[in-house]
Amino acid sequence: MENNFKSIALIGKYNSASVGNDVQRLAEFLAERGHQVWTTLHTADNCQIRSIKTAPLVDLASRMDLAIVLGGDGTMLNVARVLANHPVPMIGVNLGRLGFLADVSLDTMLPTLDEMLAGQYVAEDRIMLECHIERRGELFDTAYAFNDAVVSKGNTGRLIEFEVYIDDKFVYSQRADGLVLATPTGSTAYALSAGGPIMHPTLEAFVLTPVCAHTLSARPIAVNSRSEIEINLIHADDARAHFDGQRHQGMLVGDRLVVRRAKNTIRLLHPADHNYYDTLREKLHWGEKL
Amino acid sequence: MENNFKSIALIGKYNSASVGNDVQRLAEFLAERGHQVWTTLHTADNCQIRSIKTAPLVDLASRMDLAIVLGGDGTMLNVARVLANHPVPMIGVNLGRLGFLADVSLDTMLPTLDEMLAGQYVAEDRIMLECHIERRGELFDTAYAFNDAVVSKGNTGRLIEFEVYIDDKFVYSQRADGLVLATPTGSTAYALSAGGPIMHPTLEAFVLTPVCAHTLSARPIAVNSRSEIEINLIHADDARAHFDGQRHQGMLVGDRLVVRRAKNTIRLLHPADHNYYDTLREKLHWGEKL
Amino acid sequence: MENNFKSIALIGKYNSASVGNDVQRLAEFLAERGHQVWTTLHTADNCQIRSIKTAPLVDLASRMDLAIVLGGDGTMLNVARVLANHPVPMIGVNLGRLGFLADVSLDTMLPTLDEMLAGQYVAEDRIMLECHIERRGELFDTAYAFNDAVVSKGNTGRLIEFEVYIDDKFVYSQRADGLVLATPTGSTAYALSAGGPIMHPTLEAFVLTPVCAHTLSARPIAVNSRSEIEINLIHADDARAHFDGQRHQGMLVGDRLVVRRAKNTIRLLHPADHNYYDTLREKLHWGEKL
Amino acid sequence: MENNFKSIALIGKYNSASVGNDVQRLAEFLAERGHQVWTTLHTADNCQIRSIKTAPLVDLASRMDLAIVLGGDGTMLNVARVLANHPVPMIGVNLGRLGFLADVSLDTMLPTLDEMLAGQYVAEDRIMLECHIERRGELFDTAYAFNDAVVSKGNTGRLIEFEVYIDDKFVYSQRADGLVLATPTGSTAYALSAGGPIMHPTLEAFVLTPVCAHTLSARPIAVNSRSEIEINLIHADDARAHFDGQRHQGMLVGDRLVVRRAKNTIRLLHPADHNYYDTLREKLHWGEKL
Repeated sequence: MENNFKSIALIGKYNSASVGNDVQRLAEFLAERGHQVWTTLHTADNCQIRSIKTAPLVDLASRMDLAIVLGGDGTMLNVARVLANHPVPMIGVNLGRLGFLADVSLDTMLPTLDEMLAGQYVAEDRIMLECHIERRGELFDTAYAFNDAVVSKGNTGRLIEFEVYIDDKFVYSQRADGLVLATPTGSTAYALSAGGPIMHPTLEAFVLTPVCAHTLSARPIAVNSRSEIEINLIHADDARAHFDGQRHQGMLVGDRLVVRRAKNTIRLLHPADHNYYDTLREKLHWGEKL
Repeated sequence: MENNFKSIALIGKYNSASVGNDVQRLAEFLAERGHQVWTTLHTADNCQIRSIKTAPLVDLASRMDLAIVLGGDGTMLNVARVLANHPVPMIGVNLGRLGFLADVSLDTMLPTLDEMLAGQYVAEDRIMLECHIERRGELFDTAYAFNDAVVSKGNTGRLIEFEVYIDDKFVYSQRADGLVLATPTGSTAYALSAGGPIMHPTLEAFVLTPVCAHTLSARPIAVNSRSEIEINLIHADDARAHFDGQRHQGMLVGDRLVVRRAKNTIRLLHPADHNYYDTLREKLHWGEKL
Repeated sequence: MENNFKSIALIGKYNSASVGNDVQRLAEFLAERGHQVWTTLHTADNCQIRSIKTAPLVDLASRMDLAIVLGGDGTMLNVARVLANHPVPMIGVNLGRLGFLADVSLDTMLPTLDEMLAGQYVAEDRIMLECHIERRGELFDTAYAFNDAVVSKGNTGRLIEFEVYIDDKFVYSQRADGLVLATPTGSTAYALSAGGPIMHPTLEAFVLTPVCAHTLSARPIAVNSRSEIEINLIHADDARAHFDGQRHQGMLVGDRLVVRRAKNTIRLLHPADHNYYDTLREKLHWGEKL
Repeated sequence: MENNFKSIALIGKYNSASVGNDVQRLAEFLAERGHQVWTTLHTADNCQIRSIKTAPLVDLASRMDLAIVLGGDGTMLNVARVLANHPVPMIGVNLGRLGFLADVSLDTMLPTLDEMLAGQYVAEDRIMLECHIERRGELFDTAYAFNDAVVSKGNTGRLIEFEVYIDDKFVYSQRADGLVLATPTGSTAYALSAGGPIMHPTLEAFVLTPVCAHTLSARPIAVNSRSEIEINLIHADDARAHFDGQRHQGMLVGDRLVVRRAKNTIRLLHPADHNYYDTLREKLHWGEKL
């Protein structure tokens, strides 16, 4: 089979030096098979790698045919936000426990990737969020999110008050600790802790889940991903927006967080035997077949 | 504007005699405007109506251009299951409180319908469930459902045990009072009482919500409506399948309930000012704008 | 140490023949230590035991100093309801998995009981429910419950409507699948599946948990066990009362279920190293210390 | 009837100037009836009151026979923490909506208080929390709480990890947004938003409710108020303890929050027609009798 992925970026776990050996082992393996291998400046610095060509991640995003991440779901989220505007597919190698996103085991990394690079994989396109914070009517900040955009109370512990509009229609006002707006990918992350449903990755949907709402009638609601969601901060001592729990921005009373589906999707490549429900059962400790 | 709905069926609330006056009032109103008006045998019998042409509902389903239901959401569900194989659109007039499906108020029925028949309406296509019960490998029963298909314990109050497969992939085994498999339409009905999320009607999704599962890790899961859901009854003293809570069938250990999306959708016509979120707030007593 | 438990009743798992060997093994062990050993007619019949003196369980309840149950939590519940009016303490030997009530392991039964009979045990007094169903103002049925009294819909799957009064004060009306009224002992059983809280066994409280209530604002409420709870059935096609999920009684519209704390408590004897929180973690699969 | 409450402290809503007229009106009413009337320095300052004797709240706590609070539940919580060590009973006059604690309506304040001061009231003793934060083995901070003690994540939005011990027995480790430890009084406040049960005020219990726990098996647990609860902070970027949501303290990894029942209870005086369940229904928008 011909070489499908000519240029491959290897991306190591954020701030981890110990992943260096695995990155180099994988680089050698790929080079032998004729792939052009690059790594990010950050990974090279962290791991003291000198034998692999380096570039900033944003530059690699536009030039690579594949990104292989050695980390966990957290690193995958970080990388996905950078790749949001580029069509480069991702493979995740988990260094520890099986992840929802990083589902290639480090133990069997080389034979698994061998098969995947030969075309035996399952490709899946997942939606992302494109988020804008508007302040006094002007764009104040822009962020992508692969899991979720969250508006929440800050340090004082006082609940915040916000209004939700969907496609310019008023949905509800709420006093709560916060609100989680998740993609199907994020439905098994913070949204699940807040009481939201699990959403299969193929659903073209967002799910809004209140956190500790100050009313008994609040419920999660899943809406079409073609919808535009607007969250207006009405009252707060101290409020913040969080994107994938990794990027943060303060919010002021009067700010609007506007969330749409990002133009591009993230393409994940899974091993050929990938089974979403197996992962669910394992990660969520669902009872096995009785 | 030309007459869009030449033949119109009027369907009264199930087993209600008191709806007769409103049916006749509406029939006269429609006849004056040049529509052919029919009613069902059942409605005519119940209400002692002799002035309107009658036919069984199933016959009308294949010949009418529009069905107007005077009842509530319960009557709408009943009618929708009969219309499952026909493209006839439905309008619902609620006799009492605003319904999710029956959203034309009786008080303003005539002027509202006047506008709607003149083309001022919002059309919405909603998915239905086509359900098969298989017993010893053979088809035993078939049913449609607009809200939900439910497998649940019966009279003895003992929990049942079942396995769920989605697209032939094992999802989980569960011991529970039951399982609710709902359309977006049904997500605001029994599934919501069981702890499921609200699903916007435009979502191409089903949601599976366990009822009183005998494990702490059970959670609702929304899946693509292209999926085929299979529920295998593994153990039960006494189990039943319910379709929209209106049609019931006993189930035996070893029976399989297989649920797919029905080929046709149900087309609902709403008044032009219809707003799903307004209905949600009013029906679910969500707090108004603070 | 002197012999604290002169007469001991051995009670085998309901309808199980296989427990016979363990019952006889335990009887010999106890006889050697000078205890008078009895078993129930039911156990003797089931297990074909002829070497132990027998009597009906109700008779033994008034004459024994200790009841040792070889079964599981289900058998413990059954026996507890019979012992409700007698001060005889219980020890539970679980034949399979650790139970909340049956917490002596079969594998180590003899050495554990040796220690316990020598006085090394933890005694715990647990409250029971005394339940009366009143029909047309007259007492219609009386039942005890150790876990819970449940009012629920029956076979038709239609929700029921009831009113709850506590100490003659109106609390709420509800349309629901049912209502679970649990002791702390029952709080880890069906009430937990229905969304109720865990209640430590020392609490002098009942907890009322609605099952699939037809309102978003229903919540579990824990009340003082000195309170009298009254559940009036207002509307139902088919309703039933369940006591510990083992004893059942049909209920008619207009019936009242009145529940008080039973005069006597059930005394459970646990091994000296008993730790309620350990049992919780093991039974509920709570995460261990990270 | 003789004068039961010789000295009465009037306490106005925190930082509110507008309550001054009502305070003075009430002071005159009480003085006419022969009561000694005092107000707090804070209230006098806020409301520019010169006609009433003033003292700091802490001083009044030890000398008064009754405290009448004009505010809402928030002001009641504030005052209750100061009165924690004193036997002075409290009456709450709510300035706006009916409160759980402030249940005398401003509109009918004078006639209601007239009756109450004449002995027509319901007295209720409610438990409080006494909380200690220990740092490196030494007492670092002490606080009372009437509603709840909460350990939660701070500004960064990263979940925290903690261990819970009850009476020196390990209960669970958890990664979560936080943990709410509430009295029955606090069970209808933040704990309820976090998914906890309602606890009748007469229960001698605390309830622990996790906030957005990072596991599906977390559940609220109610324990005996004789228990000592210990929460050890194992991992956190930024964590805080909150007492009644009004007093805050930073917490470091390794800190222990130890919570016991306070030695004294808070005595609330309610109008003679007080009905806890009526308040529940009104405050929580529970459906009225159908």
